[in-house]
Amino acid sequence: MNKVDLNCDLGESFGAYRMGNDQEILDYVTSVNVACGFHAGDPTVMRKTVQLALGKEVKIGAHPGLQDLIGFGRRNMNISPQEAYDIVVYQIGALNGFLQSEGGSMQHVKPHGALYNMAAKNKELSMAIAEAVYKVNPELILFGLSGSELIRAGQAIGLQTGSEVFADRTYQHDGSLTSRLEKDALIENDDVAVAQVIRMVKEGKVLSQQGSDVALKADTICIHGDGAHALSFARHVKESLQLSEIKVKSFS
Amino acid sequence: MNKVDLNCDLGESFGAYRMGNDQEILDYVTSVNVACGFHAGDPTVMRKTVQLALGKEVKIGAHPGLQDLIGFGRRNMNISPQEAYDIVVYQIGALNGFLQSEGGSMQHVKPHGALYNMAAKNKELSMAIAEAVYKVNPELILFGLSGSELIRAGQAIGLQTGSEVFADRTYQHDGSLTSRLEKDALIENDDVAVAQVIRMVKEGKVLSQQGSDVALKADTICIHGDGAHALSFARHVKESLQLSEIKVKSFS
Amino acid sequence: MNKVDLNCDLGESFGAYRMGNDQEILDYVTSVNVACGFHAGDPTVMRKTVQLALGKEVKIGAHPGLQDLIGFGRRNMNISPQEAYDIVVYQIGALNGFLQSEGGSMQHVKPHGALYNMAAKNKELSMAIAEAVYKVNPELILFGLSGSELIRAGQAIGLQTGSEVFADRTYQHDGSLTSRLEKDALIENDDVAVAQVIRMVKEGKVLSQQGSDVALKADTICIHGDGAHALSFARHVKESLQLSEIKVKSFS
Amino acid sequence: MNKVDLNCDLGESFGAYRMGNDQEILDYVTSVNVACGFHAGDPTVMRKTVQLALGKEVKIGAHPGLQDLIGFGRRNMNISPQEAYDIVVYQIGALNGFLQSEGGSMQHVKPHGALYNMAAKNKELSMAIAEAVYKVNPELILFGLSGSELIRAGQAIGLQTGSEVFADRTYQHDGSLTSRLEKDALIENDDVAVAQVIRMVKEGKVLSQQGSDVALKADTICIHGDGAHALSFARHVKESLQLSEIKVKSFS
Repeated sequence: MNKVDLNCDLGESFGAYRMGNDQEILDYVTSVNVACGFHAGDPTVMRKTVQLALGKEVKIGAHPGLQDLIGFGRRNMNISPQEAYDIVVYQIGALNGFLQSEGGSMQHVKPHGALYNMAAKNKELSMAIAEAVYKVNPELILFGLSGSELIRAGQAIGLQTGSEVFADRTYQHDGSLTSRLEKDALIENDDVAVAQVIRMVKEGKVLSQQGSDVALKADTICIHGDGAHALSFARHVKESLQLSEIKVKSFS
Repeated sequence: MNKVDLNCDLGESFGAYRMGNDQEILDYVTSVNVACGFHAGDPTVMRKTVQLALGKEVKIGAHPGLQDLIGFGRRNMNISPQEAYDIVVYQIGALNGFLQSEGGSMQHVKPHGALYNMAAKNKELSMAIAEAVYKVNPELILFGLSGSELIRAGQAIGLQTGSEVFADRTYQHDGSLTSRLEKDALIENDDVAVAQVIRMVKEGKVLSQQGSDVALKADTICIHGDGAHALSFARHVKESLQLSEIKVKSFS
Repeated sequence: MNKVDLNCDLGESFGAYRMGNDQEILDYVTSVNVACGFHAGDPTVMRKTVQLALGKEVKIGAHPGLQDLIGFGRRNMNISPQEAYDIVVYQIGALNGFLQSEGGSMQHVKPHGALYNMAAKNKELSMAIAEAVYKVNPELILFGLSGSELIRAGQAIGLQTGSEVFADRTYQHDGSLTSRLEKDALIENDDVAVAQVIRMVKEGKVLSQQGSDVALKADTICIHGDGAHALSFARHVKESLQLSEIKVKSFS
Repeated sequence: MNKVDLNCDLGESFGAYRMGNDQEILDYVTSVNVACGFHAGDPTVMRKTVQLALGKEVKIGAHPGLQDLIGFGRRNMNISPQEAYDIVVYQIGALNGFLQSEGGSMQHVKPHGALYNMAAKNKELSMAIAEAVYKVNPELILFGLSGSELIRAGQAIGLQTGSEVFADRTYQHDGSLTSRLEKDALIENDDVAVAQVIRMVKEGKVLSQQGSDVALKADTICIHGDGAHALSFARHVKESLQLSEIKVKSFS
């Protein structure tokens, strides 16, 4: 029987600022990526988020981002591989503090935003991130865009990897995501999105914007947690997967 | 034979800004308190500092501070005990990331600056800090001002504690440090400072500014690492302790 | 005919984080206090906020706060008067940049949160803030709690002042606000709140929690802009003032 | 008689961190670029820097940078033109606060680090920066790399511009600076550097690394203020210019 993990970002509030439907989205996902205070999140939010996820028995991962709170970690920055290594070690460690104090353990690491996107195409950056994860704990699973440099780097260093696919994004013939700057980057129709995701999991294929099928691995599906629609879409995806006899479960 | 630990703050540089004589001071101390990125330090500085300390076989502790980089964590802030708990867990975790990646382990935690000073007198804050340390790892040693609420809180929760004394500060009849706002807060004469420190270790007493002896415990002596004089003073303290047949060594 | 200004905080969003109903609340107030990037707000939010307020012909003031984004500037910090002076000059200047680029001018300055509360009782801090405002531009109006040290400091240095009262807060016999830590700090009943405000404006008196009348000056009323109730309350206050033949208008 | 301005960066300290020889370098330059709190500097440092520069009768400019304190504003970031506009308006305004409170006026604006370098080659970014400067105050002079997009953008919008050249950097055949990643980017020999600068001012030409002469305009020369050598080099440049009958003076 096919199986797949469903992940979403969590704990993106900061100080007095609220973001996301953290409580509600936890009913639909099996893994969460917790912001670690650089692009979003703060120590108090992190503790509460870890408590929330542990209470729902959802697997927890670190979601390290760039030191760009004002840009939510979404703006590419010309950081060195060494800097990437250092900020990933720091943020995994910080989240681990709360896992230790709350009695949980970390399943995975998924870089956030611009760090994720830059790593997808940059081998040196990916090697630095993979090394950071491995040296903190070689049992951690590294999440990255399916077919990306980050997945290759994780495999090269000996980490288990989680190849990530997107339900609501279209793909190019080389397996990359269509840039958000293009129209047609997003799949607006939920049924189309769900059908794409089921095919990615069952057949390991996606129809590209150029009309050709592209092979890809689908270990985990990224779901977004903010916006009212996000919750109903998450439910739709989860239920459709189950109806298609795909088991929705985390890695470990 | 008497023994005492010598500790100093380390890793207080930030980005392009340099602070302290980290390399040199390591020859004189047995424990270091590493800044964790809130009041000073950054991920790259933390990695280098951990590497440096491990290379010198000096024991490593976390030095969590307030989220006040511009004030170097020295300005009292009205944080709640819960906030204190959260920032301490976060910062211990972050430093632990580098200890894991570099293959070391953490000996102790010493709050920095205003957090240290507020905790010395505030029981609730101290309990929150002690609980944070304990819940991350009950084997950690909690450093605090000798005779302070923080030491009491550490003992109450079951942590090993390190009662800290200051070589170059004068004391009040209740065992508190003379405020830096007072003249005579600092001992300018090195020989007087060294004599005070030796008596604190050997006899467990210090002569207060009011002329009376005060009993205190001296597990670890705080040495400052910045300024050219700091290095010669550190050497002077260490050599004088050894000449007085006091063994200078870390806890573990 | 009596008159009074209605003010609210504006532009408290930050990066990807949204806060407040900025667009809607502008229909009910005559002056706005724009966050300047320390406790809330950022350059992009400030530009948009200035554009919004200019479009509604509402008077604009600076709302300088402590360098405590994570605490939203609400946590008391032990800053020196000189530091208060410097952060106020900086933040007034920053907002003035957008007023110059958008073709507007600044009416007033109102310290935010902990800075406002600390200044209310601290003469030295208040003198430093008043001097900062005066030296940047002596035509600016300084807003402060009615009867506070800040109002006295503004008058002492020669600034026009705006004595601020609160519709939804109860008062103590000395004219101070009941601490938010006490029950009964907030007036939950809108009609009671509106009646209090009308009496403050018309009679210059408020009934304290101790049962005695307290004299106070009411130049401007603070309205909150976040929460759905905020808008209906703001409309209620404004309409009730007008029905009571109190003219709602800004200072200049 | 030829004339040229000598500028250097100033006020790059931050909180407890010291950087540069601000006091000393002021004897050799005619214009200073004051950090505005984003990549370096803070409100207290800015006030002191403005006081220092006014005392030496040196012309003052704003030195706006990216929101990247930890990277000292030197790491390219993918900001939008609108974001560039907003951060430039904010920072000019903030510095203007201190010029108003201290009784001075601003001569120029020079983007810092990565913002300067990105603008040199990016027309949209340059137009946004030039517009920000112009809309705050059309009398300000915009400093940029000689021959760059930033200078063209300033001229297009109607600003007076200051074409900047570097004494200690080598040039490429297209008038760009040799990347710091290349060897031969820096001119180590002071006499060679001084000769290059004098030729740039007198003849409007520089010998490129490819061996060909390149035409460029030299309105202002950038001098660095940190490091012991910086001061002697600054004196050397200034004295050599004067011996070559080039008047060293600011713009206004």
